[in-house]
Amino acid sequence: MNFTLQATDPGSKARAGVISTAHGEIQTPIFMPVGTAGTVKAVHQHELANDIKAQIILGNTYHLYLRPGLDILKQAGGLHKFNCWDKPILTDSGGYQVYSLTEVRKIKEEGVTFRSHIDGSKHLFTPENVMDTQRIIGADIIMAFDECTPYPCDYHYARRSVDMTHRWLKRCCDRFDATEPLYGYEQTLFPIVQGSVYKDLRKKSAEVIASFNREGNAIGGLSVGEPAEEMYAMTEVVCEILPHDKPRYLMGVGTPVNLLENIALGIDMFDCVMPTRNARNGMLFTKEGIINIKNKIWENDFTPIEPDSDLYADQVYSKAYLRHLIRSKEILGAQIASLHNLHFYLWLMGEARKHILAGDFRDWKEIMVQKLGKRIGE
Amino acid sequence: MNFTLQATDPGSKARAGVISTAHGEIQTPIFMPVGTAGTVKAVHQHELANDIKAQIILGNTYHLYLRPGLDILKQAGGLHKFNCWDKPILTDSGGYQVYSLTEVRKIKEEGVTFRSHIDGSKHLFTPENVMDTQRIIGADIIMAFDECTPYPCDYHYARRSVDMTHRWLKRCCDRFDATEPLYGYEQTLFPIVQGSVYKDLRKKSAEVIASFNREGNAIGGLSVGEPAEEMYAMTEVVCEILPHDKPRYLMGVGTPVNLLENIALGIDMFDCVMPTRNARNGMLFTKEGIINIKNKIWENDFTPIEPDSDLYADQVYSKAYLRHLIRSKEILGAQIASLHNLHFYLWLMGEARKHILAGDFRDWKEIMVQKLGKRIGE
Repeated sequence: MNFTLQATDPGSKARAGVISTAHGEIQTPIFMPVGTAGTVKAVHQHELANDIKAQIILGNTYHLYLRPGLDILKQAGGLHKFNCWDKPILTDSGGYQVYSLTEVRKIKEEGVTFRSHIDGSKHLFTPENVMDTQRIIGADIIMAFDECTPYPCDYHYARRSVDMTHRWLKRCCDRFDATEPLYGYEQTLFPIVQGSVYKDLRKKSAEVIASFNREGNAIGGLSVGEPAEEMYAMTEVVCEILPHDKPRYLMGVGTPVNLLENIALGIDMFDCVMPTRNARNGMLFTKEGIINIKNKIWENDFTPIEPDSDLYADQVYSKAYLRHLIRSKEILGAQIASLHNLHFYLWLMGEARKHILAGDFRDWKEIMVQKLGKRIGE
Repeated sequence: MNFTLQATDPGSKARAGVISTAHGEIQTPIFMPVGTAGTVKAVHQHELANDIKAQIILGNTYHLYLRPGLDILKQAGGLHKFNCWDKPILTDSGGYQVYSLTEVRKIKEEGVTFRSHIDGSKHLFTPENVMDTQRIIGADIIMAFDECTPYPCDYHYARRSVDMTHRWLKRCCDRFDATEPLYGYEQTLFPIVQGSVYKDLRKKSAEVIASFNREGNAIGGLSVGEPAEEMYAMTEVVCEILPHDKPRYLMGVGTPVNLLENIALGIDMFDCVMPTRNARNGMLFTKEGIINIKNKIWENDFTPIEPDSDLYADQVYSKAYLRHLIRSKEILGAQIASLHNLHFYLWLMGEARKHILAGDFRDWKEIMVQKLGKRIGE
C-alpha cells in the first residue's frame, strides 16, 4: 500500500491524497460504504461501482467469520471473489461487534470469548486468530484487534483497556508480519488509537500507535454516543500526533457534518452504517439538509428526490413515491434510499476533495455544515 | 386496445399475438410481473424495462386503494406517473385480496365490506366504485370486480357465486362505459370467468363472459390449491368458448410448467407472485429445473447462477454468494433472486413465442416441461 499526500488546505488541516492498493486507487478524503456480511445492504455491486462511485467498501470480520465462514471464503479465493467486488476492501477486526452484538462475552488478556448472535455457539477471538481470519477474508486493509470502550467509560477502565489494546496490537503485528497473504496480493494492517474521551489517554495511545510505524492509522472508540464536540476534540489531539504521510481513518463516523468537521481536522477515511441504515428508515441526506421521507409533507411532492443529481434513482423517482415505498416497507424503498444516501456521501467526499485541492475547503465547509445538518420540512 | 393474432401452433392451441395499448405493445404470450403496491418487489423500474424486459406489469387495486390512496394517485396523474413506469399496466380488481387478505369481510349483492389489513379501518368495494378506483389508478387494462371462490368450493356455493359475479360484471360494464378515462389515454375492461372446478359452471360462465364482447377476457379462481390437471381441464373448457380474436388472461398462474401447459391450451397472458415471492425464499427457476439455493450443495458452488443468461445478476454473482445472502436474509439476495426469476419467466415467454411463430411449439414444450419441473440437487 502506498499513500501520496497531494494537498493540504491552507485554512484547515484537511488533506487530499491517493491510497494505492492491489485492487486500485482510492482518492481521499473517502467514505467507505459498509458491507457487513459481504454486501452493502440493498445495493448491487455494479451500482456501488458505477452509480455511487464507491472506491472501497468495508467487510466485517465478525459477521463473515460466522457466515459464510472461513472455509467458504477460502475456497472462494477471498471476499473479493466471493462477492464480485474487484476494488479495494477494508475489514474491521470484529472488536466492535464482539462488544456490542454478542450477549455473552468475556474479555481476557488472551482475547475475547463470545457467543454467536446467530446460533449461540461459543467462539474465541484473539489478536492472532483475527489476523489469520483477515488473511483468509483477503481484505486490502485489515484492522488490528482492539477493545472499543463504550460511552461513558470510567477513566480507570479506559486506561487499562487502552493498555491492553496496545499489547494486543503488538501481538497483531507480530502475527501479521509472520504470515503471508493467501491470494497473491498485498495486505496492510492499520492499528487503532483508543482512549475513550480522555485527552491524555488518546495522546498516549496515538504516540504508541504511531511508534508501530504501520502504513496507515485508525481512530476507534468514537461515535459511540459522546457529544460531537468531544469527538472532534479527540480527533484533533490524535491527528496532531499521527504521522502526516500516512492515511488516517476515523472508524464508524458519521453524519455528513461529522465527516466535514473531521476532514478539517486531518481525517482521510470514514465508514458508517448511517447512510444505509437510516435510508431503510426513510432518512435522506441531501445538499440542503436532512429529509424524513415519512413526513406527511412529502405525501404529494411529485418532484424528483434530488433533481440535479446524476443518479438514476434521484432523477426518476419522486419523493411521494419513495415515501409510499418506505411507509409500505417495500424493498425498493430501501434500495432507492440507500442508493441516494451513499451517492450523496460519495458526492460530498468528492466535493470536499475538490475544495481541498483548490485551497478553499474551509470556507466551503463552513457554508455546507450550516445546510447539511438542517431538517427540511420539520 | 387492439389485439392481433399472429400465429397459432399447428400442434396445440398456442397462440402468438400483439396487444396494442396506449402505453405500448405487448407481445404474447406474456408474463406480467406483479407490482402489488406499485412496485415489483426488490426490482428497480429500469431493471424491469431493460434487464428483465417486462412489457407490462400488474398493480393491485386493493393495496393501492389503501396505500398510497386514491387522492395521492389522482394528484400524481395515475400509477404510471406515480411509479415511473411508462409501459402498460394492468390492475386486478381487488376481489382476490378482499377475500384472502382481510380478516373481516362480508359479501352481499351490493358488494363487499372489509377491514384494512393495515389499520383495521372499514371499507366497501362495489362493482361501481372498483371501476372508479381503477379509473383513478389509470391502468391500461382493468379487471372486473368478481368473487374468487376458494378450493375446494361447494358446487352450490360456486354456482350462486358465479351468478353474482355475472351480475356484478353487468354493473362493472355499465359503470365503466358511463365513465371516461382521467388522464387522456384509453383504458379497457376485462371480464373474468369463474365457476370453481366445475366444467358446467365454467362453460356457462365463459359463454356469459364472451357475450359481453369486451376487448379481452380473463379466467379467475384457478391456481387456488386445485391439482394442476383440474386447472388445465378448466382452461381447456373455457378457451374453447372465449373468442379467438381476443386475448385470454389466466389470473394468478403459475409455475413455468403451468405457463407452458396453459399456453398450449390457448392462454396469452399470465401473472403470478411466484417468481418474486419464491425468489425471496431462495427458490430459483432455471432452464434445467428448480434450485433451492438454501441447500448445502450450493455452499461452495462458485459458478454463476445461470452462466449463459444475458442478465448481469446471472453472470456475475455465484450460487454460493446468493446462498449466503438468502440465508443471511440480506436484501441483495432478494434483489438478485427476483431479477433472476423474472428474467427467466420473461425469457421463457419469449422462447414460447418464437416456437409458436416457428410452428414447433408443441414439441419444444414437451421437452421443456420435462426439465422445468425437476428439482436440481435434491
